[in-house]
Amino acid sequence: MMKNDCRLLKACRGEEVDCTPVWFMRQAGRYMQEYRKLREKYTLVEICTNPELAKEVTLQPIRRFDLDAAIIFSDILLPLTSMGVSFEFAQGEGPVIHRPVRSPEDAEKLHLGDPEKDLAFVFEAIRLVRTELDPKIALIGFAGAPFTIASYVIEGGYSRNFLHTKLLMYTYPDAWRRLMETICEVMTRYLAGQIEAGAQAIQLFDSWVGCLEPEDYRRCVMPYSRKIFERLKEHSIPLIHFGTGTATLLELMKEAGGTVIGVDWRISLKEAWHRLGNETPLQGNLDPVALLAPRNYLEEKVDQVLEQGDGHPGHIFNLGHGILPQTPTENVEAVVQWVHAKTKR
Amino acid sequence: MMKNDCRLLKACRGEEVDCTPVWFMRQAGRYMQEYRKLREKYTLVEICTNPELAKEVTLQPIRRFDLDAAIIFSDILLPLTSMGVSFEFAQGEGPVIHRPVRSPEDAEKLHLGDPEKDLAFVFEAIRLVRTELDPKIALIGFAGAPFTIASYVIEGGYSRNFLHTKLLMYTYPDAWRRLMETICEVMTRYLAGQIEAGAQAIQLFDSWVGCLEPEDYRRCVMPYSRKIFERLKEHSIPLIHFGTGTATLLELMKEAGGTVIGVDWRISLKEAWHRLGNETPLQGNLDPVALLAPRNYLEEKVDQVLEQGDGHPGHIFNLGHGILPQTPTENVEAVVQWVHAKTKR
Repeated sequence: MMKNDCRLLKACRGEEVDCTPVWFMRQAGRYMQEYRKLREKYTLVEICTNPELAKEVTLQPIRRFDLDAAIIFSDILLPLTSMGVSFEFAQGEGPVIHRPVRSPEDAEKLHLGDPEKDLAFVFEAIRLVRTELDPKIALIGFAGAPFTIASYVIEGGYSRNFLHTKLLMYTYPDAWRRLMETICEVMTRYLAGQIEAGAQAIQLFDSWVGCLEPEDYRRCVMPYSRKIFERLKEHSIPLIHFGTGTATLLELMKEAGGTVIGVDWRISLKEAWHRLGNETPLQGNLDPVALLAPRNYLEEKVDQVLEQGDGHPGHIFNLGHGILPQTPTENVEAVVQWVHAKTKR
Repeated sequence: MMKNDCRLLKACRGEEVDCTPVWFMRQAGRYMQEYRKLREKYTLVEICTNPELAKEVTLQPIRRFDLDAAIIFSDILLPLTSMGVSFEFAQGEGPVIHRPVRSPEDAEKLHLGDPEKDLAFVFEAIRLVRTELDPKIALIGFAGAPFTIASYVIEGGYSRNFLHTKLLMYTYPDAWRRLMETICEVMTRYLAGQIEAGAQAIQLFDSWVGCLEPEDYRRCVMPYSRKIFERLKEHSIPLIHFGTGTATLLELMKEAGGTVIGVDWRISLKEAWHRLGNETPLQGNLDPVALLAPRNYLEEKVDQVLEQGDGHPGHIFNLGHGILPQTPTENVEAVVQWVHAKTKR
């Protein structure tokens, strides 16, 4: 089997497949016992920055489930170090940025490091995974989109209303532009490095972009996401553009770029195809909470997604957001089997 | 001027108005000095349960700004006491439900109290406000919608992923039904009491319903919201149906009921009218964060909303969610003036 001939990559190009490919965002993580065991010995950052450990964790779900893609184990915030932004993952609280950017002066202090060098451990992990990975399983690389990364850098962590992010965007357009340009440059070089190391598809995570009104997205966010996609085009690999709560942004996200659009459960695949055109490959969109529901309910939900997918060659089955830590592994296994069995052409 | 002839009520009925009416969700609250001063002496619950204080706070923004409506000062969780659910407002953490409902056994324990008696202080506050309120300013009563109330009762407070709420809904449909029926009954009687006391319009807050997929909304939520609207119809007053992140639920929310649909900034008014039909009055939809932006940006944002409103008689200017505590009062004042001046017919 040729390297570019696997199920996931074909679906990303809208080509006929023998059945619908499936993978899960955050498929390597706390819901898996083997991951929790490793985490007793190593922190999240230690795993991400050690290529051997990152490879191991990337492959954990692949060994256990019949998934069609591996996604390199990392965190969207790691490239921040290349910009001089220090942070940590506080126990049970998620990421904490030590000195959030709140003013033009703060933004001035960001610098463009040397992403190729600073993030070399990720490229090395990708090379290690590729040598072990079955060629029929695709390896996905990823990065955070400029808005979502900016929101962490500005808020200092997760936010409910994105007050500081929007205020910086509204109040200091020049500082916003510089911040977004810097993130854009780092992420583009980071993603290019991942592709050169062997990533066969790329996902850009704009997880929090759904907090914006369409006009703000168009003016202050789209140009930067677009620049990343434009610059990655030369690599001719599938680019997945993902966000949550994006029902009113879908057309603009497609305009920004990406060969595949990732959507969450708030919008039906049918509606998304209706709006983006039937030729646009879509990834999604089971609610991660459904993976914790009783088996009969879970199956019903999977059937709903597949029915909407309706054998569309450009459907990649996934969740609408990452797997929750409380998820039973048996349910993950069942969903992978159902998706393959129920969509066999 | 007749009692039902004021600007807000006319706009709710889609009738011609001399200019677009404006009010703000959470227009009485922490962003106002006079409110913070009262809060030094009284807790939130003390203010809500004391009709004289509740009246005072309700009127604070009316005395300061040229608003077209007052909304009775209260909290959507107060009716919980009538169901035997105890809670508190923890400093800086929002509401905390003491024993969240997580199982059918927990749900069994809820009882239907005597809303008319248990919530009599709200009705009294409404009567007091009405005697002092200028007849050209409408008085709005409100309650939480069944889903949003259930989410607090089940999660125990605010939630990011509504895991427990969805799981109870998926796993124990009978318990879910009983819980929703109980909430429905309490809220209907609570709202009817408010109308009888003098509320001239009612807003049902389904603030968190945007976390659901449309199919779950249709099956597990809509029937209960609908029942409330159906039962309130006999009162022949405007019913405002509000939620955030509802871009994919709008048609279903309209089907559930309400004479006015409230939307947030994530969807343009133009798009909402396109989907709901031009005859549907809409309330919204400035991003509350815009009220903290520099004056020129704020004005641009207000102009955008008004342009989309385009002199539609059925437009009620409001935010897409509640005023933030950090909001400068001068900006609130400016927006009220702009809306009236810029939409003068």
